[in-house]
Amino acid sequence: MESIHELKQEVLEANLALVTNKLVISTWGNVSGYDPESGIFVIKASGVPYSALREEHMVAVELSGKIIDTKYRPSSDTNTHRIIYSHFSEKGIRGIVHTHSQYASIWAQLGRALPCFGTTHADYFDGEIPCTEELTDDEILEGYEKYTGISIINAMRDKDPLRVPAAFVIHHGPFAWGETPEKGVMNSVVLEYICKMAIMMNIVDPNIRPLREAILRKHQDRKYGVNAYYGQISKSNQPIKSDKQDKE
Amino acid sequence: MESIHELKQEVLEANLALVTNKLVISTWGNVSGYDPESGIFVIKASGVPYSALREEHMVAVELSGKIIDTKYRPSSDTNTHRIIYSHFSEKGIRGIVHTHSQYASIWAQLGRALPCFGTTHADYFDGEIPCTEELTDDEILEGYEKYTGISIINAMRDKDPLRVPAAFVIHHGPFAWGETPEKGVMNSVVLEYICKMAIMMNIVDPNIRPLREAILRKHQDRKYGVNAYYGQISKSNQPIKSDKQDKE
Amino acid sequence: MESIHELKQEVLEANLALVTNKLVISTWGNVSGYDPESGIFVIKASGVPYSALREEHMVAVELSGKIIDTKYRPSSDTNTHRIIYSHFSEKGIRGIVHTHSQYASIWAQLGRALPCFGTTHADYFDGEIPCTEELTDDEILEGYEKYTGISIINAMRDKDPLRVPAAFVIHHGPFAWGETPEKGVMNSVVLEYICKMAIMMNIVDPNIRPLREAILRKHQDRKYGVNAYYGQISKSNQPIKSDKQDKE
Amino acid sequence: MESIHELKQEVLEANLALVTNKLVISTWGNVSGYDPESGIFVIKASGVPYSALREEHMVAVELSGKIIDTKYRPSSDTNTHRIIYSHFSEKGIRGIVHTHSQYASIWAQLGRALPCFGTTHADYFDGEIPCTEELTDDEILEGYEKYTGISIINAMRDKDPLRVPAAFVIHHGPFAWGETPEKGVMNSVVLEYICKMAIMMNIVDPNIRPLREAILRKHQDRKYGVNAYYGQISKSNQPIKSDKQDKE
Repeated sequence: MESIHELKQEVLEANLALVTNKLVISTWGNVSGYDPESGIFVIKASGVPYSALREEHMVAVELSGKIIDTKYRPSSDTNTHRIIYSHFSEKGIRGIVHTHSQYASIWAQLGRALPCFGTTHADYFDGEIPCTEELTDDEILEGYEKYTGISIINAMRDKDPLRVPAAFVIHHGPFAWGETPEKGVMNSVVLEYICKMAIMMNIVDPNIRPLREAILRKHQDRKYGVNAYYGQISKSNQPIKSDKQDKE
Repeated sequence: MESIHELKQEVLEANLALVTNKLVISTWGNVSGYDPESGIFVIKASGVPYSALREEHMVAVELSGKIIDTKYRPSSDTNTHRIIYSHFSEKGIRGIVHTHSQYASIWAQLGRALPCFGTTHADYFDGEIPCTEELTDDEILEGYEKYTGISIINAMRDKDPLRVPAAFVIHHGPFAWGETPEKGVMNSVVLEYICKMAIMMNIVDPNIRPLREAILRKHQDRKYGVNAYYGQISKSNQPIKSDKQDKE
Repeated sequence: MESIHELKQEVLEANLALVTNKLVISTWGNVSGYDPESGIFVIKASGVPYSALREEHMVAVELSGKIIDTKYRPSSDTNTHRIIYSHFSEKGIRGIVHTHSQYASIWAQLGRALPCFGTTHADYFDGEIPCTEELTDDEILEGYEKYTGISIINAMRDKDPLRVPAAFVIHHGPFAWGETPEKGVMNSVVLEYICKMAIMMNIVDPNIRPLREAILRKHQDRKYGVNAYYGQISKSNQPIKSDKQDKE
Repeated sequence: MESIHELKQEVLEANLALVTNKLVISTWGNVSGYDPESGIFVIKASGVPYSALREEHMVAVELSGKIIDTKYRPSSDTNTHRIIYSHFSEKGIRGIVHTHSQYASIWAQLGRALPCFGTTHADYFDGEIPCTEELTDDEILEGYEKYTGISIINAMRDKDPLRVPAAFVIHHGPFAWGETPEKGVMNSVVLEYICKMAIMMNIVDPNIRPLREAILRKHQDRKYGVNAYYGQISKSNQPIKSDKQDKE
């Protein structure tokens, strides 16, 4: 089991990586990280500017919703993260990222699923990235963030969250996730990248069809299949890590 | 009452923040700050490049239009700021920002109000952001900047300037404002951000409809309502401030 | 009369400013400066990367076309600059700038004049910015760069080069100019800025009409008219200069 | 013959230049360099983040496909590079670059050849840049990367790879090449630049026709013809090199 201090450091770094990757400004967005053994997740405090962010602003919350650290209010989106962990943690999801990154938010505002238009998409997402249905007025009033989480789970109903690690919340913006908070950030970066490409491509030619299944399969399999041959196999089975300058 | 020196420092910092937020180049744009007790506002001198900007280039002006500091000419847009303070200072507006930031100026050139297309907009602006009517030839000749101010007041006629803190001046660019010059700058940053999203979204699908009222209300209320739950409540009731690096 | 060394330094700095203003990459583009007393202009050497650019790469050329400095070949566009100085130097043009900046080059590729769509345009250019006609095959073979210059002069036939300090060369890119090389660079910066706005605005709504004449006149007059009130009037009648950091 | 160490350093620098030129993020893309005397090429290891990239991650491979350095797996795209060298090395190609740079990848996703729309294109590419045909399902299963290489060779069938140094792989992204790895990177930079211009121009006016042959010929000839007059002719016949800061 990871110590709570280590988890907070990991989540802090992932939150700061949103800024260096230009996915957020001001106090927008949030990253959380989940520890399955303790059933606790850690999430950015609400409304704190990234430049002032310290470990103390990482708020520990139980999966039941009980807030452990009471000095700072957790993100207003905490209940959305909680619902996602409740459903996806058994499938290995340990990090969730929400941003208002521009092109992914534009796509969310369009209210459409994103078809797989190219191999960059196929390298990270196994096909279409879904978009949620609108909430009802009652759901908005009764539990906006909770029902937002439920709408994400519904949109993902026939998908493996490890293979399609993101969804658009209609009118709002993207949620992405992964096996670690850092991987959730990387999936958010890629989502922004492919949304920009999809939007520009769509403007030039709205009739372009998605990638053929055979190419999608090939790109997924060469990275994640049983005979994957992308990347290195080191003795420790660890990927080669970036230097610190990656963070700058 | 704030000292005039403090006000000038505040306005100087807000002007420089236009550059770091990439809202202006060269000598373009201007920020002013208003002190309601003395009835004086301070505004950037006309035509001074931002890299040369010092406290001495912050020119104090009375609400009547009388210029107190006569070493430097105030911004050519001074009369527009003056009209806005005359109408909105009683509602708590203490800072006004004018830029030619690209996407907000594109929207102004389109000559349309900006509907609320997404939650990023809803977090800062309570619905549609209005666009002014064209001035008549007589108004242009008689008092271009004054009538520009009046056209902004007219465009805002049924809106609360604290809840809709910006307007587009047709063919020209955005004016934004807030409870402080710094908040006026933040509203200018958000306006540029949502204009880019609205423009791209509009190109892909010009038929997207604005956000439902229920979502707009929810986002406004969770930040500004009586039961707001976004952000922190500290003992001093002060928001957590950014570190200096935010300015870089 | 300015010394040739001073002119070369001025032209060198203006060339380097193309890089800091992101108007060029690699070896692209060129700035020249003209000294009317000696009838000599100085222009960037051909094909030298900006990072290696020194005063020695500033090549002095007579208005007749005779090359004074023979160590380095002048820009392949030298004859275009020469033609422009031959026609416009008597109107006060002392600096010429050619780039392939992206949005201005896109507009040039569209092969259209740029109408004045907004006040940012009106602050720097008195109305429509013209686009050249295509050269004939014979003109291309006989003197491509010379006839490019002549096509610019023709496109400008009913315009004052001080008030409309730029033209698009069809399929190619922008030429801008001004009373100094530095002002030519600033006009190139503004041209790129307004071309981006015009292109995006045109995509959203191709039917937007140009600015009314009264607004255009007002913006030109408040900056350049006999009763101009934009900027400062210092005793020495010099504008306030940027700090060095403007160059970074 | 270049030493293998020198070749690896050259290829390492060219790989890092992808990052400084914003053509890649994370571990994406790859540059290789070929030594015709030894028949060996050197290519980036698979899945290594650029910030961690060292000479040891440059993997030497024989043209037959035999891997010489076995510590790290070479790029998953190695077979595509191998096929291209097999066909184009006799024409002087010594460096190959693959990226997912955004606008070139958008064009690849559109599945079209890129006509020559302007002189920036004409300065580097002698006419249309081709796009590959789709692979069959059998080709994808049997040898995805090999058949990708073959599809590039087929797309280039009537072109000189030195004069048209790039092709789009449909749905995927660009491959570019050149007489050195560094020149391959420069061709990738220019390809991204002209793809952005072509996409924006196409959105504004999809009916713009390609450049006339006479202009294309002129721009090619003044840079590469027997009477070329672009650039410098030094005694050593070496181009003027950039300073180190170009790499930063």
